[in-house]
Amino acid sequence: MSLLVVGSVAFDDVETPSGRRVNILGGSATYFSLAASRLHPVQVVAVVGDDFGPEQDAVFQGRPIDLTGLVRQGGRSFHWRGEYGLDLNEAKTLDTQLNVFADFHPALPESHRHASCLFLGNIDPHLQMDVVRQMASRPRWIGLDTMNFWINGAREALMRVLGEADILFINEAEARSLTGERHLLNVYEKVRSMGPRILVVKRGEYGVALFTPDGMFVAPAYLLKEVADPTGAGDTFAGGFMGYLAATDNVGLETLKRATLMGTVLASFTVEQFGTGGLESLSDNAIHGRYAAMHDLIHVVRA
Amino acid sequence: MSLLVVGSVAFDDVETPSGRRVNILGGSATYFSLAASRLHPVQVVAVVGDDFGPEQDAVFQGRPIDLTGLVRQGGRSFHWRGEYGLDLNEAKTLDTQLNVFADFHPALPESHRHASCLFLGNIDPHLQMDVVRQMASRPRWIGLDTMNFWINGAREALMRVLGEADILFINEAEARSLTGERHLLNVYEKVRSMGPRILVVKRGEYGVALFTPDGMFVAPAYLLKEVADPTGAGDTFAGGFMGYLAATDNVGLETLKRATLMGTVLASFTVEQFGTGGLESLSDNAIHGRYAAMHDLIHVVRA
Repeated sequence: MSLLVVGSVAFDDVETPSGRRVNILGGSATYFSLAASRLHPVQVVAVVGDDFGPEQDAVFQGRPIDLTGLVRQGGRSFHWRGEYGLDLNEAKTLDTQLNVFADFHPALPESHRHASCLFLGNIDPHLQMDVVRQMASRPRWIGLDTMNFWINGAREALMRVLGEADILFINEAEARSLTGERHLLNVYEKVRSMGPRILVVKRGEYGVALFTPDGMFVAPAYLLKEVADPTGAGDTFAGGFMGYLAATDNVGLETLKRATLMGTVLASFTVEQFGTGGLESLSDNAIHGRYAAMHDLIHVVRA
Repeated sequence: MSLLVVGSVAFDDVETPSGRRVNILGGSATYFSLAASRLHPVQVVAVVGDDFGPEQDAVFQGRPIDLTGLVRQGGRSFHWRGEYGLDLNEAKTLDTQLNVFADFHPALPESHRHASCLFLGNIDPHLQMDVVRQMASRPRWIGLDTMNFWINGAREALMRVLGEADILFINEAEARSLTGERHLLNVYEKVRSMGPRILVVKRGEYGVALFTPDGMFVAPAYLLKEVADPTGAGDTFAGGFMGYLAATDNVGLETLKRATLMGTVLASFTVEQFGTGGLESLSDNAIHGRYAAMHDLIHVVRA
C-alpha cells in the first residue's frame, strides 16, 4: 500500500536537561518519513524555505522517501523553539515562526493522489481537510495527529477532518482536552462518535494505549538509560505505526498491536539523541533487537 | 508459604473528585491483608485504638486473616486525612495523627516468627527492622514499602532495613528520590546496590514496572471507566503480589510477572470504590475475569 505524509519539515531549537541544539532538522513530516521509510516507501508533502540546503536534503537521501511533493519556496522554513524540564513528557514551546508555512496550501502531485495510507501531521485542520479532498480515491487508512492549539482554536474544522479519519494519534492530555473525559475508555467512546474507529493515545515515557473496535492494547515505552531529546517521538511513533500498516496486508487487531510495538521501538531511537540523529544512524539489526526486547518486556505466559 | 504483614490499621478521611468520606477503615495492613487473603491466609501485626469496634472487625471476619497479632490499646487509632485532585496519581496529605501508633513496638507472637513471606508496610524503618530481627528464621521473601517521609527523615535506618529486603515496592517519584536517578533502569541498579534483588515501581494509573535479575516486565493498570478513590491501591497491589508468591512454589520470573498482574487486578477493584468497599464485596469470578482481561490487554502474538 502506498504511503503519504503531509506535515512540516522544519528547523528546531531545543533545550533539554541533556543539552541544547539550535537550527537542527525537525518537523512532523521529517520524523514521520524517516521512521516510516524503514518499513515502506513514503511520499512527503511539505514546504521548506531557502534555508533548507544540501545538508538537510542529505538526511532524506538514500532512503525510500519521495520528495517530489516537497515545495521549495523563498523565505525561511518553519522554525520551532522549545524546551523540556525534568519531566520529559511535555515540551514547553518558547517560539513558533510559521515563515513559509504561513501561506502553505498543499497541492498534491497527481502521483500522490492515490495513496492507500495517508498521514495528516499536526497542522491546521483546514489544510488537513484540503489534502483529504485532493485524494482521487478514499485511502484505506487516514491517520491524523492534532494538538491543543487546534482543539481550542479551530475546533469546527478539526471536527470536520476528524469525521474523515480512521486513526487519531493524540497525546493523553490533549485527548482529555478534546473529549472532556478523564478516563481513556470514555475518551475512546467520544472519539469514536467524532469519526475515528481507532485511537492511539500517546503517553510519553509511559508508552501508548491503543483502542480499536476489536479490542485494546496498552504498551509501555521501551526503557532507556538516558533520554536526550523527546522531540519527534510522537511523529516517529506514527511513522513506525503507519509504515507497518502500509507494509502489511492483514489489518486485524494483531497487526495494529505490532504496529504499536514498531512505533514504540522507532520512537525509542529518536529520543536517545537530539533531533533526527537517532533515526539517521539506525541499523535494521538495532530495530529488530529492540522489537524482540519489547516483546520480552510485556510478555507473560498464560497460566 | 506462611504470609505475615506488619503495617497500619487506620481510619481515613478522604476527599477525591468523586466525593468525600470520613472515618473509613484504611491503613496499609488493612488493604494488604484484604487483598492477600484472596490468595493465601495472612497474619496481621498492627495496633488499633478503642475506636476500632465491631464494625471494623467485621471487615476482616470470614476471611483467612489471622488477627492474633492485632494489638488493641486505649486511645485513638492512627488517622490519616488526605485529598486527591484531578491527577489521581498523587495524594496530598492534609493531616496525620499517629495516636496509638506513636508508641507502637510490634511484638511478634511466637506463631508469627516463622513466616516465609513477610511484608513490611510503609512504617518507620526502625520498626520494620525491629520486626525483621524478631523472625526466628530468615523468610524466603521480605517485601518492603516506604515513602519520602522516611527517605528524607530516616535514611540511615531505611538503608539498614533495605539491606535485609528482597523486594522493594515504591512509587515512581519516591524511587527517584531514593536513588537520585531519573530513569528506571538506573534506579534499579542503585536499588540493587542497596539490597533488594527485586524492584516494583508503582506508577499509579500507568501501572507497574518490575525489575528482577532475570528480566523486566512493565504492565499497565487495568483500564477503568471511573476511579473513585486511589487510597490503598499500592498496599492492595503488594497484597495481591505477595499473596500470589505465598501461594506459589515456583518463584521464577514468570511467577513474579503473574504476581504483578494479580496485584494490578486487585488494585483495580480497590480504586473503584472508596476505602475497602471494592475489596469487601469482591467475588472470585470478578477477580478471574479481570485477570484474563489483563492478559488480553497486554498480549501480542509473537510475529
